[in-house]
Amino acid sequence: MGPAATADFIGKLTAARNADRDQDHVPSITCCLPDIPDRTEAIINNGPSPLPAMLHSLSILERSGVGRIAIPCNTAHYWFDDLQRRTRIPLIHIVDAVKNALSLRGLLGDCIGLLATTATVTAGVYTNRLAIDGIRCVVPTADDQRSLMNVIRHIKGGHRDEICAQVIRALSARLMHQGAHAVILGCTELPLMVPGNDGELIDSTQALAQECVRLSPLAPYTDAFA
Amino acid sequence: MGPAATADFIGKLTAARNADRDQDHVPSITCCLPDIPDRTEAIINNGPSPLPAMLHSLSILERSGVGRIAIPCNTAHYWFDDLQRRTRIPLIHIVDAVKNALSLRGLLGDCIGLLATTATVTAGVYTNRLAIDGIRCVVPTADDQRSLMNVIRHIKGGHRDEICAQVIRALSARLMHQGAHAVILGCTELPLMVPGNDGELIDSTQALAQECVRLSPLAPYTDAFA
Repeated sequence: MGPAATADFIGKLTAARNADRDQDHVPSITCCLPDIPDRTEAIINNGPSPLPAMLHSLSILERSGVGRIAIPCNTAHYWFDDLQRRTRIPLIHIVDAVKNALSLRGLLGDCIGLLATTATVTAGVYTNRLAIDGIRCVVPTADDQRSLMNVIRHIKGGHRDEICAQVIRALSARLMHQGAHAVILGCTELPLMVPGNDGELIDSTQALAQECVRLSPLAPYTDAFA
Repeated sequence: MGPAATADFIGKLTAARNADRDQDHVPSITCCLPDIPDRTEAIINNGPSPLPAMLHSLSILERSGVGRIAIPCNTAHYWFDDLQRRTRIPLIHIVDAVKNALSLRGLLGDCIGLLATTATVTAGVYTNRLAIDGIRCVVPTADDQRSLMNVIRHIKGGHRDEICAQVIRALSARLMHQGAHAVILGCTELPLMVPGNDGELIDSTQALAQECVRLSPLAPYTDAFA
């Protein structure tokens, strides 16, 4: 939903394929209509719902003929079931993608830290879905969560200051200290500041891109239009 | 057309707006269907035409309701008039965007270097359109052009080696030595390796992004879906 995070996702989708030529990359249609009510405001402060705007994007993607839909915004997954109910195109859940990334690192069943928007945390977007696999989440204290939200707003404003990266790393270190075996960057703005999958960090954007590549097997070049 | 170049374009579109919040960014639909015949092969070696595939993308974008269309691939502009004839949606020509970038630098009327695919160069995509404004292009020698094509293929293969950047800078320096006042990175793979608008280099991807932002004035936040 954040345009910079969307660009980051498309870059990671390209890198995840590891293709030698254009034709081997995952074909994609990207709908980036950022004039949409703030997701966090809607969940936390009863602000205007972004669901109608998301359904509008969904209908554009449906008409374009895509086979699967990914949403590179963690907070938006609050409306995942509402969206899935409205379309027959399978949506890819970002938490399932992160779960696969955790599995690849042998971390399923462990205690994992979560850095995400206050809305993502309180709505249980991660905690509920990870609990199914017996994964327990540790989240920042109320004060730390406020710092994290300031950082997220700062990044959304295009301010990529080193201080943002420092705060993210410090908050991550605190979660590791509380027993986390890894820390999910569960807001797609965060990997814009710190490289994900570096040390203890799990990049939800990259996990989603890898899941898209996994679900889009390489087809032989068909020259369909030649 | 190159997926990495497309991701780079979306990133530059976001950066060019310089917005404080998501809602102020340029809304966009991106159609990235890379299983399309090679543009250079089609022009130089009479390979299969990419036009039918491009028309397919055009129809997807038309149905999605966009107001303007930009193509972050210089070589594809060989088919610009064919595409424009088939749609009432105005297409933004990347050479016009570069022309505006040159104008902002006070370089209109000067002699300009061009680093682009052999197809872009020989088809006159830049030379013909810049000649209208009295701009003369200098291009690499046949040997240098071959080196450049190797670099472009290398970048398309996902190999971002420093040697690529060194070759691009060396070729640019030779064009400057031949009298160019600036050098256009007229293939959107090239700015993936060297930061454009740095020194003598004009980044066609960034110029196109800036043109999109210029043509998409900031609307007051309407909460259209609230």
